[in-house]
Amino acid sequence: MSDTTRNKSFLTEKIRETQSLLCVGLDTVMSRLPSSVQGDVLSFNKAIIDATREDCIAYKPNFAFYEAMGTEGWSILEATIRYIGDQHLIIADAKRGDIGNTSRMYAEAVFHRLGCDAITVNPYMGEDCVRPFYLDGKWVIILALTSNAGSHDFQKQTLSNGQLLYQEIMNVSATWGSAEDTMFVLGATHPSEVEACRKAFPDHFFLIPGVGAQGGDLNAICEAGMNQQGGLLINASRSILYASDGPDFAEAAHQEASRMNQQFKPHLQRIGLV
Amino acid sequence: MSDTTRNKSFLTEKIRETQSLLCVGLDTVMSRLPSSVQGDVLSFNKAIIDATREDCIAYKPNFAFYEAMGTEGWSILEATIRYIGDQHLIIADAKRGDIGNTSRMYAEAVFHRLGCDAITVNPYMGEDCVRPFYLDGKWVIILALTSNAGSHDFQKQTLSNGQLLYQEIMNVSATWGSAEDTMFVLGATHPSEVEACRKAFPDHFFLIPGVGAQGGDLNAICEAGMNQQGGLLINASRSILYASDGPDFAEAAHQEASRMNQQFKPHLQRIGLV
Repeated sequence: MSDTTRNKSFLTEKIRETQSLLCVGLDTVMSRLPSSVQGDVLSFNKAIIDATREDCIAYKPNFAFYEAMGTEGWSILEATIRYIGDQHLIIADAKRGDIGNTSRMYAEAVFHRLGCDAITVNPYMGEDCVRPFYLDGKWVIILALTSNAGSHDFQKQTLSNGQLLYQEIMNVSATWGSAEDTMFVLGATHPSEVEACRKAFPDHFFLIPGVGAQGGDLNAICEAGMNQQGGLLINASRSILYASDGPDFAEAAHQEASRMNQQFKPHLQRIGLV
Repeated sequence: MSDTTRNKSFLTEKIRETQSLLCVGLDTVMSRLPSSVQGDVLSFNKAIIDATREDCIAYKPNFAFYEAMGTEGWSILEATIRYIGDQHLIIADAKRGDIGNTSRMYAEAVFHRLGCDAITVNPYMGEDCVRPFYLDGKWVIILALTSNAGSHDFQKQTLSNGQLLYQEIMNVSATWGSAEDTMFVLGATHPSEVEACRKAFPDHFFLIPGVGAQGGDLNAICEAGMNQQGGLLINASRSILYASDGPDFAEAAHQEASRMNQQFKPHLQRIGLV
């Protein structure tokens, strides 16, 4: 990694340059690789990255998929992150969080060992579990309202102070950092809540999973969630990685990313970013 | 791993045999290794395991500490788990949890690749994120009320139904499995809450971190939390691993484990287990 800081103005500049809000999720799974790559996960990732470099602002390797391959998977994860380089935000989608001395070790793993720029963090254990991830020039991306059905189980429970749990978590955790180092995960499956969160947090970037395979509406989420700096990282994983299972998989990934970027364009024009 | 199931009756039998409730946390950090092991984390772990095999019922490798060492760390984690064998419960202290297709990959990593018997899971994302960890013969250990100061930030918030969040999480998640496959994490720093949880959940095992370095009172927690089957796995990490920084570190670890076991003894006698 070079010394280029992937800070907030880097993100807005990158959105302008690529005319994209896209984050490509690297949830690579052996069983879905095209036969043409002959089971070589790293080659597959490199081909996807090369095909989408100009189409996206961020990459988000999903740690579970690499851990499922054991030690070799961790090595592929390291090599994939190195290959991305320093021209994109690299998000460790790891959903970590533990007591202070343990979160410090996770931060060491993700930021120093692997060279990621950002990490998704689970806030359930509270402030002292999240603090160790606030390191200079790094982003902490706090799970607020996730895209899955289970987001209704606890995240949307009402507290005695009238707030929903995810709102309380956003209100409290926003005080741990600033819009320059903190983002929130908000699922594309909750557009009206995203709109309310944008009003409450006008300056924060939101990481939006749940378009594509999970069914969230991309136009609705752009309407609801963008701000003057762009303000959204919209993730797509399976719809890009597995756009084709033939030898044209990389070109198909590029086409799918371009198709999404065409959908972003009027929204970026609306705010004058392109 | 052999086919021996580390089920609930295995645990109670193991408690009887070892006269112990101890889980040894393998939070091994390079900078605290005795100079006599010359930076060899795996040798250190093996020596600790050999010295404490007869003194404990479970081992709990803390994944953060191995991830902080990169690919080599993952390899040491694999070898450590293999070395423990099948006579103890092996808990992956990984605090994982993500949408279904991702939790399935974490379960693959921890249960199939690494051969652990149990995993600590963060319930914030709800039922569909926890379900994939329920595999035959495996334990799901759900974070309820953790030992750290941040447990007050969200876990102890009152919901509009009058329950505290961690109580609601226990009530709801207890319906996802049974006392045969589900445990809860309850911090030793909250003895009165542990007592109330024991009344509400008479049959579940609780994993108790927070004695030793974190200051929880071992006697108070045994009084509050045991049931007729034992019912507690009491974790100690740093106080055992680093009982001595000299070449006698393994013997010192055994001595520290024995000292804790002496404290368990009257409680095990009280319930007639020894």
